[in-house]
Order: sequence, then C-alpha cells, then structure tokens
Amino acid sequence: MNLHRKPIPVEEAVQRVMEHKPQQKSEEVRLEDSYGRILAEDIKATHAVPPFNKSPYDGFAIRAADTAKASKESPVGFVVTETVAAGHRASRALESGEAVRIMTGAEIPEGATCVAMFEICQTEEKANATYMSIKRSMEDGQNIIERGSETEEGEVLVCKGEIINPGIQAVLATFGYAKVQVYQQPRVGVFATGTELLDIDQPLEPGKIRNSNAYMVLAQIERSGAEPVYFGKLADDFDTCYEAVRQALSEVDILITTGGVSVGDYDLMPDIYEKLGADVLFNKIAMRPGSVTTVAALGQQLLFGLSGNPSACYVGYELYTHPFIQAYLGNQRVYHNVIDAELGADFPKPNPFTRFVRGFVRYEEGKVCVYPAGIDKSAVVTSLAHSNVLIVLRGGTRGYQQGDAVRAILLEDTKGTESFQLYSS
Amino acid sequence: MNLHRKPIPVEEAVQRVMEHKPQQKSEEVRLEDSYGRILAEDIKATHAVPPFNKSPYDGFAIRAADTAKASKESPVGFVVTETVAAGHRASRALESGEAVRIMTGAEIPEGATCVAMFEICQTEEKANATYMSIKRSMEDGQNIIERGSETEEGEVLVCKGEIINPGIQAVLATFGYAKVQVYQQPRVGVFATGTELLDIDQPLEPGKIRNSNAYMVLAQIERSGAEPVYFGKLADDFDTCYEAVRQALSEVDILITTGGVSVGDYDLMPDIYEKLGADVLFNKIAMRPGSVTTVAALGQQLLFGLSGNPSACYVGYELYTHPFIQAYLGNQRVYHNVIDAELGADFPKPNPFTRFVRGFVRYEEGKVCVYPAGIDKSAVVTSLAHSNVLIVLRGGTRGYQQGDAVRAILLEDTKGTESFQLYSS
Repeated sequence: MNLHRKPIPVEEAVQRVMEHKPQQKSEEVRLEDSYGRILAEDIKATHAVPPFNKSPYDGFAIRAADTAKASKESPVGFVVTETVAAGHRASRALESGEAVRIMTGAEIPEGATCVAMFEICQTEEKANATYMSIKRSMEDGQNIIERGSETEEGEVLVCKGEIINPGIQAVLATFGYAKVQVYQQPRVGVFATGTELLDIDQPLEPGKIRNSNAYMVLAQIERSGAEPVYFGKLADDFDTCYEAVRQALSEVDILITTGGVSVGDYDLMPDIYEKLGADVLFNKIAMRPGSVTTVAALGQQLLFGLSGNPSACYVGYELYTHPFIQAYLGNQRVYHNVIDAELGADFPKPNPFTRFVRGFVRYEEGKVCVYPAGIDKSAVVTSLAHSNVLIVLRGGTRGYQQGDAVRAILLEDTKGTESFQLYSS
Repeated sequence: MNLHRKPIPVEEAVQRVMEHKPQQKSEEVRLEDSYGRILAEDIKATHAVPPFNKSPYDGFAIRAADTAKASKESPVGFVVTETVAAGHRASRALESGEAVRIMTGAEIPEGATCVAMFEICQTEEKANATYMSIKRSMEDGQNIIERGSETEEGEVLVCKGEIINPGIQAVLATFGYAKVQVYQQPRVGVFATGTELLDIDQPLEPGKIRNSNAYMVLAQIERSGAEPVYFGKLADDFDTCYEAVRQALSEVDILITTGGVSVGDYDLMPDIYEKLGADVLFNKIAMRPGSVTTVAALGQQLLFGLSGNPSACYVGYELYTHPFIQAYLGNQRVYHNVIDAELGADFPKPNPFTRFVRGFVRYEEGKVCVYPAGIDKSAVVTSLAHSNVLIVLRGGTRGYQQGDAVRAILLEDTKGTESFQLYSS
C-alpha cells in the first residue's frame, strides 16, 4: 500500500478519466418513451414547413390582380365558391373573380395569390350564392405563409447528442419520427464498503451507521440519466470482495464503490484493483473533499472508487463519474456547466487545496449568487439535501468573503458544456 | 359562442386556476424508487448524528487528564489495550494510563476524553505489548465529534413538499427510511383536436400536418412530474367528442385538450364545456401567444383548453397547467422561478400585450442573460426544441433592445417558487 500518494490537479484527473472513450450503443424507442433520452441520430426535416402555402388568418383567398382597381368608392366584387377549413383543400383551382373562404392554417387554393382578412371584406347572400367585396387593393403573396418558409426539406433541426425535451418531442412528431434512435443508458453498478455500515432497514447498533452513500449515488446515477444497479455491501473479507467485484464487472458498464479507498488498515479497494490488473488512473487529487477518490481502468470499463465520506463521495461522483456517464450516453456536452457567480455568504476557512462546497444558487436582480448549504451546522447529509451547486473555492487562499467572485458547478442544469474549465482563465 | 371575450391579465388567470385546490393523495414507495418524487411527510432525525461520540482522525483515545504533565522533556506513556475500527466498539471502558488505537469514524471508548492523532504519538512494541507516549498535554473533548453535535434526535431535516434529490435520498437512508411517503402523481389526460392533424406514423397529406402538440404536451407533463395519458385525437363530430371527453374525465385527474378553443367555425371545446356543465374560469388572456387559452372547472377537475398553435400551447401549459400539477403533487413551491435577466439580443416587435418569448439562458460573467430562440427563423417547433426559458416582455412596449432588463421564467429549474410574480414589482 502506497502511503505517500502524489496528488494531481482536478483538471488533470478529469482529463485522465475522459481519455477513456466508452463504446456508445444506440437503440430505437417509441416517441412517447423518448423524453429525457439522448438523440443518437440527427433529426432532419422530412418535409418543408409549412408543407403547403397556408393562410395565417381567417379570410378570403383571391387573386391580388383582381383588386388592382379596388377603392372605397368602387369596391371590387367576388363570388365565393367554397370554404376551406384547416386540414381540407379546395376542390378546384380558383379563377379570376372568385374568392374562397379560408380558415387559419388552411391550404391556399391553387390560383389564389393573397388572403384578404375577414375584417376588410363585406359579404352578402343573394339568390343562394355568397358574394364578397373589397375596398382596397392587395398584393401578390400578401397574408400567405409560403411553403418551406419556416424550414426547408432536409434541414438538420436537432443534432444527435441532444437531450430530448418537450420541444424536441414536438419536432420529432412534426416530422413523423414515430420511433427514434437514442443512445443506450449505461448500467452503473454500486457497491458500498465499510464494516460500520448497516442496511437501511436495520436498527441502529453501537458503533454503526446506516449506509447512506449507496442510495445517494443511486440517485445521482439516475439524475445523470443512467441505469443504477445496486449490488449491496461488500463483505469484509478480501477474497469474497474480489469475487463480488469481478462478477459485478461482467454485469455492468461502469462500477462504483463507496469507501475503502483511504490508506486505513481496512481499505480493500487498492488491492482489488491490483489483483484485477486494473490500471489506476489516479488515487490522490489536490481537492477537498474527496482527495482519495480513485479511478481505475480495466479494458473499456472504469471503476470509480469514491470516498466513504458522504460529501466527498457526492463531489467525486459529480466531478468524475457524471461526465464519463454523459460520454457513454452520447451527450454532446458531457460536463456540468461551471459558471461565474457571487458568493452569498462568508466562507472563512482557508483553502490549501481547491475546495468544492455544497451550496445552492439564487438569482438576485440579474446576478447569480451562490450560498454554502448548512454552513452553520455540520450535518453533511442534511446540507447535501439542499444543494444544487458545488461552489469552487480556489486552492491557496485564506478564505472567502460574501460578495467575492467565485465559480460554481450547476448540478441540475441539463444543458451541460463541452469543455471543463474550473476557473475562468 | 361569445366572439367578444374579455381578456384578463396573466396573473389573474393564474390566480383563478390556483384557487382550485386539488385533493392530494400520498402513497408509500421504496427508497430506491423515490428519486424525483415529492415528500408527503417531514423527514425527522430518528437518532442523533453522530449517534455516538466519534473520532475524526486515526489516533489514540486516552484520558486528557493523564497528559496534564506531558512535555517534550517528560513524555507520558500509555499501554495500548486494543484497536477499534469504524463499525466496532471497544471491549471495555478505558482506564487511566490506557490508550485505545482508534480509526476515523470509530466510536470513542467509554472513559476516553480525547483523541491524540497518530502524528503526535510515539509507539513502541515491548514484550508482546504495545506502548504509546505523548509529549504534549491534551484537553477534554479534543478531537472528539460529540454525539448529536450535527443533528439532534427528532429534528426535522427535510420538509414535506420537497422533491427528492440525491442528498435527500442520503438523508432518508441515514435515518432508516427504507420506505417513504410521497404524493401520488396525478394522471393527466391529453386529447388533440383538429381535422388537419395526422398521426405521427401517417404519411403527409395535402392540407394536413402531423399532430405535434400532443407529444410536446406529454413530455411537458412528464417534465412536471405527473403521469401523462394520451387519448389520441378528438373526432370532428360534437357528440362523439363530448362522449370521449366525458369518458376521459372518469379516468384522469386533469384533462388537457390542444386546439379547438378559438372562435373559428370548427372549435368545439366551448360547447363541450357548456354541455358538461363546467365552469369556464377564463377564455381570453391578455398575453401573446396563447390568448385563447381556456380553463374550465368541473367539480375538483380542471380542463385545460390549450391553443392549437404549438408555441401558444407550450406557453399555456407552462403558465397554467404546470403549477396546478405541482399543487396536485404537493410541491411546496408550485410556480416556475421567474428571475431578473439581461436580454441578450434585440427583440424589436412591439408588445401591445405581455409576450412570452421562447428562449434560452446563458450565464455570462456572473450575469444571467436570456436569448430568444430562433428569432431569425420562424419555425416554431424547432425553436421550442432549444428553449429552456420563457422571456417575459411586458405589454405596452415598443420592443426591446439587447442589454435591457427583462424577466425570465426558468422551465427546467426544479426548485420553483411559492408565489408567482411576473414582474419585479
């Protein structure tokens, strides 16, 4: 066991993880099952929008040329030949002197060159026929939304790698994507380690605590859009542990363990990595919390050894596991957004290493403010409950004051970003 | 049919909807199935945290009084009686002159009053026993995290009405909530109306378009955390329509229709509301798009008549249906967050009525900037695909310029807010 691990910077650790390119697989899902999944194909306009010349108003479709001499003093008259509602079309082409009553969204009849809104037309019923007259001249194309004016056929509207939201679902429906190719969700296995851990339905025992990290990580995996698989607690015994990890690796794409990565007497993970022949990418990072976060690669699979401390475990997951899962998912923007923000409260602790403080965001008069969660009480899991950002406090500082410019990692923003930049520059 | 509907302000329309209090129902789910659901019970600390006095470091638990006279010149010696790892406890109380080797997170043995970190201790093996000596004095309580210092037993940690996130799942696990009470998700039915609508798997026909609103709304319902139920398209014929709506109302908690609420010849919904005996809360709102959005109440059920225009449909859902669903879900903060932001691009159109412009948010140097989506091209559904905010442009203005202060409704923020304030004041 190497007691003198050399810490590497956070950015380097992220880079070492992301150098591993997972093999994306896609599958076809029904449109109605696609919400929240990630597109594995570009979505193209399968037809022009609108697919035909259409009317933006209720009115009369006519030939503009017929109105050339219309004025208040000498209105021009038309015979109304038929009515076209949205979804229907005229029975024949329109000729000079004819008008077709047309509803919003309906197709412009062949031969018509403009639409006169109801408001400017006078109608009259006479001898079982309807007549319309107009007192002003119209222009060709007036009140006509032209075929293809919004979207041309073949245009790429949404690129693969986008998360399907309600608007994208509307695009898919518009263009007849009854089924759509999305990336498969990786299966992410979770083991908890630690003899002090009780199952959640066990009564509290002297010296023991309940296993909270595993459930937290399962929810984090779900929030990342992957499929969590819980394998329970790892036993105390090395051989049993090793066998359990080896078996789990055959069932999942990514494996997470919580605890067991420190340098304590009972930390098994380093030896398991060694026996598996996994390549340890790093086992010490210049960050707080989570400095012992360890990642190992075994072929295409990554093993994330997260800390047993809840807040270190949380931070380690979001910094290293989340983007790797996004790469698996085919997300175009794999990283959490890191934004500039104003610190909403003092954080007097000095930071020899870069610190990630759980916190929440507030938007105040056009500014983005971030507040440490539960700074006055130290119950870690409770403050995690109220967090939606990680406030980034640069290492080598003597603490921060309210109003200081800081960076913050947005944990619930679905947009993400293509490159990871912890600091503005 | 009343052609002269009187428009009411957006805030009043929201208020009329939210005066209807849905009957919340709760159900028990397993912790691992609870992510994203809303708590129907306060989560209390079922035990103190930590549940016992514990050590924050690896070290030796001793009596501080024993070290009173320790100095560099005259170290004080202890006999090491046993080792306690996390999850274990000492076999007996510690007595004066004794030290217990203790690991991070382990329970402080009875009788011990402080922990000396390994780094300040000298150990020695002698005649099958281990001895430890220390060169400085310690104080009672030093390096001991006291029972209950983080959380007292019975303390409310997370209030009902909160959305379960990874941190809350950790809290639930910590306190043994293997099952948890959450609010039931309302079933929200969706009908599309419009003879021009084709099903998504039908080929395009002259004059027709595919039904995109229904799929968009189904995804919006899912984003709101409710259960969508798609009933297909409503027929053209009044009696069949009426019967379909009546039947659907017996199967869902909330019913949404898209289209059919204008004053056109083919708009059936107003007559259906009348025949059902539903109380129309409003049918005209001083807003663009979505001015014809109609909401009707039938006992405890609300019927949302959204516009057939995609962007009006989208906006009507987010303003009126989303908060009502949140009330059903028991969310403490039912409304989308409305924030101050800077407009990122010109929007030259004058606004006789309050306008909700689909757009997206960018965080730039600590500022929140919002950009209209697809302002240069008018393909509505495509711009909805890229939207995560609605930019609020106040009515009675001559258009807006880049840099102007505006308000924006965050559509993907899960936090929400308790009161709806369209404008800052």
